[in-house]
Amino acid sequence: MTVNIAVLGAGSWGTILANLLVENGHHVELWGNDAEKVAEINEQHTNKHYLPDFKINPQLHATLDLDEAFEQVDVVLFVIPTQVIRQVAEQIAPVLAAKQVKPVIVTASKGLEQGTHKRISEVLTETIPVDVRNGIVVLSGPSHAEDVAMKDITTLTAASTDLAQAEWVQEIFMNDYFRLYTNTDVVGVEMGAALKNVIALGAGALHGLGYGDNTKAALMTRGLAEISRLGVAMGANPLTFIGLSGVGDLIVTGTSVHSRNWRAGNALGQGQKLPEVLENMGMVVEGVATCKAAYELAQQRSVEMPITTAIYNVLYRDCDIKTEIGNLMQRSGKPEIDFN
Amino acid sequence: MTVNIAVLGAGSWGTILANLLVENGHHVELWGNDAEKVAEINEQHTNKHYLPDFKINPQLHATLDLDEAFEQVDVVLFVIPTQVIRQVAEQIAPVLAAKQVKPVIVTASKGLEQGTHKRISEVLTETIPVDVRNGIVVLSGPSHAEDVAMKDITTLTAASTDLAQAEWVQEIFMNDYFRLYTNTDVVGVEMGAALKNVIALGAGALHGLGYGDNTKAALMTRGLAEISRLGVAMGANPLTFIGLSGVGDLIVTGTSVHSRNWRAGNALGQGQKLPEVLENMGMVVEGVATCKAAYELAQQRSVEMPITTAIYNVLYRDCDIKTEIGNLMQRSGKPEIDFN
Repeated sequence: MTVNIAVLGAGSWGTILANLLVENGHHVELWGNDAEKVAEINEQHTNKHYLPDFKINPQLHATLDLDEAFEQVDVVLFVIPTQVIRQVAEQIAPVLAAKQVKPVIVTASKGLEQGTHKRISEVLTETIPVDVRNGIVVLSGPSHAEDVAMKDITTLTAASTDLAQAEWVQEIFMNDYFRLYTNTDVVGVEMGAALKNVIALGAGALHGLGYGDNTKAALMTRGLAEISRLGVAMGANPLTFIGLSGVGDLIVTGTSVHSRNWRAGNALGQGQKLPEVLENMGMVVEGVATCKAAYELAQQRSVEMPITTAIYNVLYRDCDIKTEIGNLMQRSGKPEIDFN
Repeated sequence: MTVNIAVLGAGSWGTILANLLVENGHHVELWGNDAEKVAEINEQHTNKHYLPDFKINPQLHATLDLDEAFEQVDVVLFVIPTQVIRQVAEQIAPVLAAKQVKPVIVTASKGLEQGTHKRISEVLTETIPVDVRNGIVVLSGPSHAEDVAMKDITTLTAASTDLAQAEWVQEIFMNDYFRLYTNTDVVGVEMGAALKNVIALGAGALHGLGYGDNTKAALMTRGLAEISRLGVAMGANPLTFIGLSGVGDLIVTGTSVHSRNWRAGNALGQGQKLPEVLENMGMVVEGVATCKAAYELAQQRSVEMPITTAIYNVLYRDCDIKTEIGNLMQRSGKPEIDFN
């Protein structure tokens, strides 16, 4: 099966996914908004800012032009920062209408929209009318771009309320090192994907503050519990959080120096202030914006999220990270399963 | 509250727990079967084989004599290798009867008994009659002894079918760096604790074979799924596996070089054979015996456990680890939640 795919976003993950899809035999257009990077991809077959050592397949074509990207399109894959998805989706909806195409929409971004607190598939549902698209499929799982670049075996979840569409997307992406599982719990998969970045900030902060493995595992476990609580309050199946976009992504994001959220947390733990941390990263740290959305959502829904609250206090209230994390880890003992 | 506690087992975890209980103000007798180590603990206040740099509280008294350990006893804490628990329990039952004490039995060991495939609390229920003991409480969670030795914040689950007894044990162990949560799902807590050691062998093997973070997270996640499947088949609440003795212990055991199971797996992945690995470790690697019990249990119950099976093939059928792990990671994609 060969399909036409427009990949939106030429960051590390977008570039790697576009490259993988080319190698799977599909026709891929990679859309970016930076003329220099687009030219670099087409001419040098590199994307050095995001992937210093990676050689891109010469068959991958990048473009600045949405019209070109959507000339023929069966799949539109969003891999852009969460906070600009609404804007880009509003921009592409009329292009899809003009081209009279009706692609499946796939998202590989992870986060919650600030202000509305919406999941990415909700933003896409609102902004791309159903008459110019097919279903929406969410792609998520433990997947550092750097590892996929090295063809290290990677597993993901393809989630959609329509299982057949998830299975179709599974077939498009799957190869011998990129393994997809399907799931129909879109809420659970998206909440897990978005919120684990907040917990990864916390795990990085613990490392920066000098805590050890037991404490980090405790924070990740209690973090998963609070992710699950909020997820269940939003309608997720709690068992989804045991899966790839829950535990799996949390492990890889919360224990690896490859993760920008972990690295940002580590820098905060070492005493850097947020603006300095973001400046040094030079990439979007999804957990920072999502933390605010998650905190507000938890307040609205009266869901207890102590770790998210502590991170929020550090990021948005300039509270002392040592005090916040210290208080957090010393809460009084109680029953373990408390989200039912 | 001050209670009298007999700790059985002077390995790293037994020593650290006994020391913590002394520092919590309890009267503790640490029972060991090695005269030299017992003398070292009492005279040098060290246990260098297991804890090279740790200074034991001088108030901790070790003994070779069960009679002395059980003179006055409100709690008996088992911290001995799983495969000798039946033998030691049978040995202490008449001593408890003779002393006319009726302690709460706590276990901090992790594994399944070979041959019978029984959980530790089942072995204890069978061997220590109900007229010489109170309830049985299982202690489990992400807790490297080395980290507790440094007073790093550590969280555990105290599980018992009798919540009041779990809460009582919680109170005995709890301090400002050792945090306990309660749970009544004993089956889930014990199955998680036992089986994560098998998955940790697999995660270590991946590392030894040169795989990256995505693959390790995938193995741990799919490992948790198969742990949960077998656990649920045995009567566990699937949500327990999201908790400290599931995800939490899996993270700390599956990502840390402190874990002997991970280290043993890593050595296997690097091409060492099992006898050589065990010889070099010089400590019990619980996952090796538990893998056999888990494999046989899965066969009996017709539960699919591909990771456990692969590890079993390597450990007990002398199969090539590269082939086994390679096949494992390339199974065909399917729905993610499959244990209901």
